[in-house]
Amino acid sequence: MKASIIAVGTELLFGQTVNTNATYLSENLNHMGFDVMYHFVVGDNPARLKEKLADAFSDTDIVLLTGGLGPTQDDLTKEMVAEYMGAEMYLDQRVVDDLREFFHKRGGHMSENNYKQAYLPVGCTPLYNASGTAPGFALQKDGKTAICFPGPPRELHWLFEHGARQYLEQMIDKRMYYRVIRTIGIGESDLEMLLMPLIDGQTDPTIATYAKEGECTLRVASQRATIEEAKQAADEMTARIEEIVGKYIYSLDNEELNEVVVRILKESGLTISAAESVTGGSFAKMITDVAGASNVIKSSFVTYSDEAKVSFGVDSSVISDFGVVSAETAMEMAKAVKTATGADLCLSVTGYAGPEADPGHDAGEAYIGYMYKDKLSAVRVNTSRNDRKWNRNYFTLRMLRTAYLLLTDQIENS
Amino acid sequence: MKASIIAVGTELLFGQTVNTNATYLSENLNHMGFDVMYHFVVGDNPARLKEKLADAFSDTDIVLLTGGLGPTQDDLTKEMVAEYMGAEMYLDQRVVDDLREFFHKRGGHMSENNYKQAYLPVGCTPLYNASGTAPGFALQKDGKTAICFPGPPRELHWLFEHGARQYLEQMIDKRMYYRVIRTIGIGESDLEMLLMPLIDGQTDPTIATYAKEGECTLRVASQRATIEEAKQAADEMTARIEEIVGKYIYSLDNEELNEVVVRILKESGLTISAAESVTGGSFAKMITDVAGASNVIKSSFVTYSDEAKVSFGVDSSVISDFGVVSAETAMEMAKAVKTATGADLCLSVTGYAGPEADPGHDAGEAYIGYMYKDKLSAVRVNTSRNDRKWNRNYFTLRMLRTAYLLLTDQIENS
Repeated sequence: MKASIIAVGTELLFGQTVNTNATYLSENLNHMGFDVMYHFVVGDNPARLKEKLADAFSDTDIVLLTGGLGPTQDDLTKEMVAEYMGAEMYLDQRVVDDLREFFHKRGGHMSENNYKQAYLPVGCTPLYNASGTAPGFALQKDGKTAICFPGPPRELHWLFEHGARQYLEQMIDKRMYYRVIRTIGIGESDLEMLLMPLIDGQTDPTIATYAKEGECTLRVASQRATIEEAKQAADEMTARIEEIVGKYIYSLDNEELNEVVVRILKESGLTISAAESVTGGSFAKMITDVAGASNVIKSSFVTYSDEAKVSFGVDSSVISDFGVVSAETAMEMAKAVKTATGADLCLSVTGYAGPEADPGHDAGEAYIGYMYKDKLSAVRVNTSRNDRKWNRNYFTLRMLRTAYLLLTDQIENS
Repeated sequence: MKASIIAVGTELLFGQTVNTNATYLSENLNHMGFDVMYHFVVGDNPARLKEKLADAFSDTDIVLLTGGLGPTQDDLTKEMVAEYMGAEMYLDQRVVDDLREFFHKRGGHMSENNYKQAYLPVGCTPLYNASGTAPGFALQKDGKTAICFPGPPRELHWLFEHGARQYLEQMIDKRMYYRVIRTIGIGESDLEMLLMPLIDGQTDPTIATYAKEGECTLRVASQRATIEEAKQAADEMTARIEEIVGKYIYSLDNEELNEVVVRILKESGLTISAAESVTGGSFAKMITDVAGASNVIKSSFVTYSDEAKVSFGVDSSVISDFGVVSAETAMEMAKAVKTATGADLCLSVTGYAGPEADPGHDAGEAYIGYMYKDKLSAVRVNTSRNDRKWNRNYFTLRMLRTAYLLLTDQIENS
């Protein structure tokens, strides 16, 4: 069943508010098996709203609207939807009672324009709102359904879970299951090339690739009569994908790489620590972003200057002989982490994030050192980009990837 | 001049990605004086994209598109825009050369489908992309303008600043000048109350307030015949704002607080260092996010466990007497930073980010210790929230704010 979403609010067109409501509704609708075809955003303007409503209904069976249900003059979503569907308005006594109680409880008075919120279209299914003052509603006519929600995300979420979800579930006969597979170490086009035999001519399950900074995600989705059938179809396709690109996959369940690394460390009872130069604490931050990281990281170090590296235990002659951005210095740093902490997996990074780099080097060059199970080594990374933020993020991801490959006994390659 | 924005990408309709590109473009277009009338989101479907393109152009003069410029089969934005505007495609040699160099530098090969990215519509103004592989472009016909950007936000931002902004500025007859003033330590409603005499009845310049996590931003904008006139009007208003709320302002030029702190440290020839528990490296990361931070931060420490704090120099009896999350432990940590590094400004943080906290404590409680000019002290912070990510971010901002207030000789208050 085809759906579209209209968000009403001038603040969205000003760029003051991000349209997370459309994202929330899309995710939920997709999970339930609806096909979301369009998002629209219009300002608080009745004529343009009515036009987009007609536009949305011309191509989709169900239109979800957010925003414009408030008590002020420019809140006109309800009136426009009722007019479009040819419904009169009635004063809903339960909403009046709810509003009176709401204002009474807060010691405030109910102003005249609050009554505006108590009018609903005749024949609608009201979505009474215990999380705010504006009720939502669903209205059907001639096989078309409009569902209106208030704009504040908290109220939208509440109404979706308390009424709208149930209402929507009655409307669909198919169930959607999908799996998000996370990969690292392969670009989007190479991934797609390898999977082309599976992607080409796909109907169900579908396979889609998405590039994120430094990594690539696959979404395998199936829509069948029951959730069990959909899951089985998606799982079978996932197994075929694993056969082809398994070595790049780090999660079959949409986990982040830092979550996976912390989970493996916890499960194995191992600890991790790092000496970070160019990333300046980003790696430690990513590890400690995960709740419960205190079991796996006791301490970590930012050794930003040469002097700090030396006082941390790096042999100064290594820096002068090989340069501060070198495999040798990276290995010295990893060794010093081992000495300082005794952690099972000791990592280091030294590099140029940009804009500046020493003569003979480019921004984007870095070495990731590691000491693990008595093996001391280093990996060279070169992004060929002069973008400080991007490079620091990429180096941090590569440290995570190095940790992941070491912990899963895979050989580190670039 | 009326504008609309079309974001292309099935991932948006799946609810996997939030449409921050529309927000970014809307904000920038509004700043420049365009009226943004609509946002549309369509999937990677050529027929529906063409339909929405016609729909957008029926009511607006300029349409900005994001996404669908990649190398894969389902990237069709460019082809659809060219077809709609009646333009043929040509192979742009500069893009081919850029792509070849890009892949050569990374030691990779340029796959066949990458050539797809080098085709552009005849007669367009190319927007060459040094931040990624997909070029953007602007194309005009019969008074209608389409501008296409790649979907990754970083690339969109880069192309907007390197070409698109200039292109758009030529299209409007008024010039907009605005100034973004950053404040900390005052809430949005208090700020608005204080500035009400200036905000009330404003026409030009306009003053708008925006709340961001932990701080508040003011935007002073003027639109006049020339940029000089607009600048003068905005600057005069800024001076009046400074008179009223000057003590909360840390930047008149939209600098981030970490940039301001690093700038002050650099200008004063001072160094900074920290021992981070709960923030796990976030503070060091924020300082080293700023290019040239190597002059001000030599080393920094993540002392996440009790054991790590003790081996870093914290007296274990202080932890057992006062608790690990206490002003006393925070001060011990700051003292230990001083001993380890001799930095001019030594900071520390210990707290509960959540979800867990020790008995008798809540997630959201933290102490920021500091040692500066022989003064050793600590500040208590309590967010009253059990939101790990939010708390860690807030604690990091409060460390930055503490550094800022110390460096500007203002008394630290909560």
